[in-house]
Amino acid sequence: MMTFTPLLVLELASDTKKEAIAWLLSRMRDQQQNGGAELIVEQLGPGVSTQEKENLNIFLVGASRQRLLSGAEEIGFFKEFKDGSMRAFTCTNKYDFKDFKGDGDSFFSVAECQYIIKHELDTLRAKDETHVPGYTQAKLYPGKSLIRRLQSKGILIQMFPLHEKEELKRLSFSWYKKVKLSLQPLDDIRHYYGEGQALYFGFLQYFTFALVPFAVIGVPYYMFDWEGYDKHVVLAVFNLVWCTVILELWKQFSASLAYRWGTLSRKKAFEEPRPGFHGILGFNPVTGREEPLYPNTKRQLRIYFVSLPFVLLCLYLSFCVMMVYFQMESLVLSIHDEDPTFCSGVLLFIPSIIYAVVIEIMNFIYRYAAEFLTEWENHRLESSYQNHLVLKVLVFNFFNCFASLFFIAFIMQDMVLLRQRRRNKMMIHKVRKIRTLEDKELPLVEQVRLETYMSTYLGTFDDYLELFLLFGYVSLFSCVYPLAAVLVVLNNITEVYSDAFKMCHVFKRPFTDPAADIGVWQLAFETMSVIAVVTNCALIGMSPHVKAYFPDSETQLILWTVAVEHVLLAFKFILTFLIPDVPKHIQIKLARLEFESQEALKKKKMLEASELSKTIQ
Amino acid sequence: MMTFTPLLVLELASDTKKEAIAWLLSRMRDQQQNGGAELIVEQLGPGVSTQEKENLNIFLVGASRQRLLSGAEEIGFFKEFKDGSMRAFTCTNKYDFKDFKGDGDSFFSVAECQYIIKHELDTLRAKDETHVPGYTQAKLYPGKSLIRRLQSKGILIQMFPLHEKEELKRLSFSWYKKVKLSLQPLDDIRHYYGEGQALYFGFLQYFTFALVPFAVIGVPYYMFDWEGYDKHVVLAVFNLVWCTVILELWKQFSASLAYRWGTLSRKKAFEEPRPGFHGILGFNPVTGREEPLYPNTKRQLRIYFVSLPFVLLCLYLSFCVMMVYFQMESLVLSIHDEDPTFCSGVLLFIPSIIYAVVIEIMNFIYRYAAEFLTEWENHRLESSYQNHLVLKVLVFNFFNCFASLFFIAFIMQDMVLLRQRRRNKMMIHKVRKIRTLEDKELPLVEQVRLETYMSTYLGTFDDYLELFLLFGYVSLFSCVYPLAAVLVVLNNITEVYSDAFKMCHVFKRPFTDPAADIGVWQLAFETMSVIAVVTNCALIGMSPHVKAYFPDSETQLILWTVAVEHVLLAFKFILTFLIPDVPKHIQIKLARLEFESQEALKKKKMLEASELSKTIQ
Repeated sequence: MMTFTPLLVLELASDTKKEAIAWLLSRMRDQQQNGGAELIVEQLGPGVSTQEKENLNIFLVGASRQRLLSGAEEIGFFKEFKDGSMRAFTCTNKYDFKDFKGDGDSFFSVAECQYIIKHELDTLRAKDETHVPGYTQAKLYPGKSLIRRLQSKGILIQMFPLHEKEELKRLSFSWYKKVKLSLQPLDDIRHYYGEGQALYFGFLQYFTFALVPFAVIGVPYYMFDWEGYDKHVVLAVFNLVWCTVILELWKQFSASLAYRWGTLSRKKAFEEPRPGFHGILGFNPVTGREEPLYPNTKRQLRIYFVSLPFVLLCLYLSFCVMMVYFQMESLVLSIHDEDPTFCSGVLLFIPSIIYAVVIEIMNFIYRYAAEFLTEWENHRLESSYQNHLVLKVLVFNFFNCFASLFFIAFIMQDMVLLRQRRRNKMMIHKVRKIRTLEDKELPLVEQVRLETYMSTYLGTFDDYLELFLLFGYVSLFSCVYPLAAVLVVLNNITEVYSDAFKMCHVFKRPFTDPAADIGVWQLAFETMSVIAVVTNCALIGMSPHVKAYFPDSETQLILWTVAVEHVLLAFKFILTFLIPDVPKHIQIKLARLEFESQEALKKKKMLEASELSKTIQ
Repeated sequence: MMTFTPLLVLELASDTKKEAIAWLLSRMRDQQQNGGAELIVEQLGPGVSTQEKENLNIFLVGASRQRLLSGAEEIGFFKEFKDGSMRAFTCTNKYDFKDFKGDGDSFFSVAECQYIIKHELDTLRAKDETHVPGYTQAKLYPGKSLIRRLQSKGILIQMFPLHEKEELKRLSFSWYKKVKLSLQPLDDIRHYYGEGQALYFGFLQYFTFALVPFAVIGVPYYMFDWEGYDKHVVLAVFNLVWCTVILELWKQFSASLAYRWGTLSRKKAFEEPRPGFHGILGFNPVTGREEPLYPNTKRQLRIYFVSLPFVLLCLYLSFCVMMVYFQMESLVLSIHDEDPTFCSGVLLFIPSIIYAVVIEIMNFIYRYAAEFLTEWENHRLESSYQNHLVLKVLVFNFFNCFASLFFIAFIMQDMVLLRQRRRNKMMIHKVRKIRTLEDKELPLVEQVRLETYMSTYLGTFDDYLELFLLFGYVSLFSCVYPLAAVLVVLNNITEVYSDAFKMCHVFKRPFTDPAADIGVWQLAFETMSVIAVVTNCALIGMSPHVKAYFPDSETQLILWTVAVEHVLLAFKFILTFLIPDVPKHIQIKLARLEFESQEALKKKKMLEASELSKTIQ
């Protein structure tokens, strides 16, 4: 029935005007030299079940093999060369790449092909000052992304890549259906979902393994109630060194993965801007390509004079809410203490419930505002947009999760309450409503319709945030509650399976995200480990066992604590500085590529010079 | 008389055997394809004054223009292209470089030509397992640098580049002979002495200007004896922000200079190893050139298990000496207090004198040991050798200079003594014996002989060290003695002139050092500014005015001080993180070069592929 392999689904609003559809299809099908995307597009026929609306505007998008190859060259995919190094793919010397066989079938994974098509659609830009045919309010100006404008006007409802039943079955088998505990099939995940997803699962697995020594050390502390000065210091120093080393080694591990997957060598500066990026059409000073330009100073001004004050204001508000909560709680407690009835017992829970609800609402509003602000900051690259968004949301979440714990630990100095509180917080698990993609075989039309109704995967943000907060619980107060790591390890193991299941059956297939690292999360985890040094030193300094060593002078105790903390921090920074971010053998490979590139540029200039002299002669 | 422009002087021992000289000259003159250096060498004739020894083995070295150009290409000098970007020089397209005119005369500065010849001599390596003719104990093995072996066996006494009277006169006029205060002629200095020297003078000038606001702010503190809580905090915060900002902006400034001078784009990994580097002959994994290889792990082991313990041991010894000194001093003081006579008054100076002498001796031995150890660590690059040496000597000097001050400030808490001590330390200036190169015209033979006797410039190390220690006096205890900056500014102004005079008239011309930044000194200054935050916070916390704010609780005072210090440190790190190291416009230029290189590599592979297909057809 289909004459091509459909890769992407485009759903337009059911009342889209005919001329707009015709115009969009012609732009998508038009040849590249005419400014089109040169893709294959076909409308999806009506399904078997008749209760559906007839005029669903669903289109399937694909591309010829040749088009995919030239698209890959434009994007600059790095692939393994015959000599084992990673090189930018070019069509002309395609046979020099290791896995290129025959006409290049299966050289690029389906996920990569879908990414190529998405890239082509994203870079389909308006050429003149005009509007979408039939929609005079949908203005277009030179350089504006068509897809983006159609989306913002509600004409394009969604665009997503199709799942592949067979491959998904194989992946899910190796991923979570095997009974024995095994390593994550990172290469397979990357093959199906792309680098961003694979890095998340790689990090989840790495983090879980890295916590095992923590958990093992924590158990005797919990069981035998070890509380001596020396033992706590041992735990804190181990904590510090371990956190630093694992975070540094993760950088090396992720660099190895990213090199193998070809994303490490791709340079951000050479990438195309994200579709939402707008500005005056001009020429990129690095690549010389025509694209929108936006002055960096303007973006900086927006960040420092609007976004930053907004974030600080929200943190202040959040702090006020927390103070009101503590006052409410002490009020309720005093009422209950005066006259303990059932009613006043129930009343005890009221402040916590109100606080939780208020924080949840604030979180929701804040997240919306953060997305709006980050969009408004107009970042050129998807990765920098993501990093700024993540940073905003992260700071707010960190504050909401830990501010009350800090308050209890250091202002109220109530360790029993701290322990309770932490246990409660860690046990909160969101109940998720699950709609599954079943294993049974469906005709293409039905499968596409089913996937249209599946929920959209919103990226790894919430998953990383959960890991980050768990890391906070483990590292910040590890002296007070050494068993935390055990619970986090158990949680992570179930997390791996539930995340894998969600990815395979609950969500639409997401577009791949060619990430080279975990971005701003690395910074977040490192910052957390620095804060952890401070909190652990403070907690040890406050413990009664340590206080017993300095019976006469509290001043001496504090000075010693501060001195030890400074030494530990200095040691941590030196350690971070000494462990290289990229393993030596990959550094050499990258340098080799750079050297060859420079030599090639010299050669190219030479050729040009000799040709010029020939012309003159 | 001379048929070529002599650039370098080589002095061999007067009793060098004839066959060794003949062998060396033949290797130097031999063609490159035969493994020679293809240089021009001539023996210097006898001088006019007859009292000199007749058989002085002094040789003048030069090279043909063509040889210099090909040498420049080998080294990979970056020069300004016609389009204003910096590109690696190649002989074939030499006319595309901006300043290349005619046959390329004066395209490279004399200093660059001298560097090229030095590089050629340095890379003159033995090919077989043999020995220097006539010296059976001077063993050679494949890959061993000839010059290095001759030097270590005392056959080659010295090798230095010649001064150029005319250019030197021009330079010294624009540098220090003008009466009006003007900016340093950095481009001229770089032209004559190379990038390393120019960066030092650039830094000296930048640092002096950067201290002016410090000095201006310090004066009222000194004159009106401001000592309030708020005023000190203002000074400390200004101190912190200023230090951070100037150090970051210096990075940007030096990156601009280095880009303009073509050293920023040169990659360390592509450089030839330093002559002292030894190892098994193999192929460099990055450049594919044949050169000695030495495993990195072995070097790491030597650093961490020999050098590091040695440095720590020396610091410990130095600490012991300091403690003995303090004990001696308190002993002498008690004697003087009991029975104050003239004799006991003289006795008061004895401990300080002994301490100074012991420290000076330790310094001397330590420096020798540090050089030996760093040589033994066998670093591949000159820059990494320098960085490791500087770091070792720096730590020891920092400890010796400031440990006693720290002790007085924080253990003895004697602010009056601290102020005295600092003033004394700052006033110590070394008296230097000066032998000058006079302005009068001399015949070449006489000039060469004169320069042979001039002292050798030992690099910028001591100059930077002096600046570093001055920066320490200004920043570490700025709250106690706000006038320090004024004295340092005055000192620096005289320093500029005396350094300039030394460079032009006292020393042999040094070889250029194609540096892209000030290396480990940047790290040293940054570390100092971090330590300064800690010391200033502590000093403010200890001041009686601040103590008056917390009359009841010393604990509260300390906790507040520590909290403020942590906030300041966090702020400092964020600031460092936010200010980019390389200015945006240079980042773009570098990215553009990289992009073009990658594109050229793609094209090259394409050409190869098309040629291959032609061959097959």
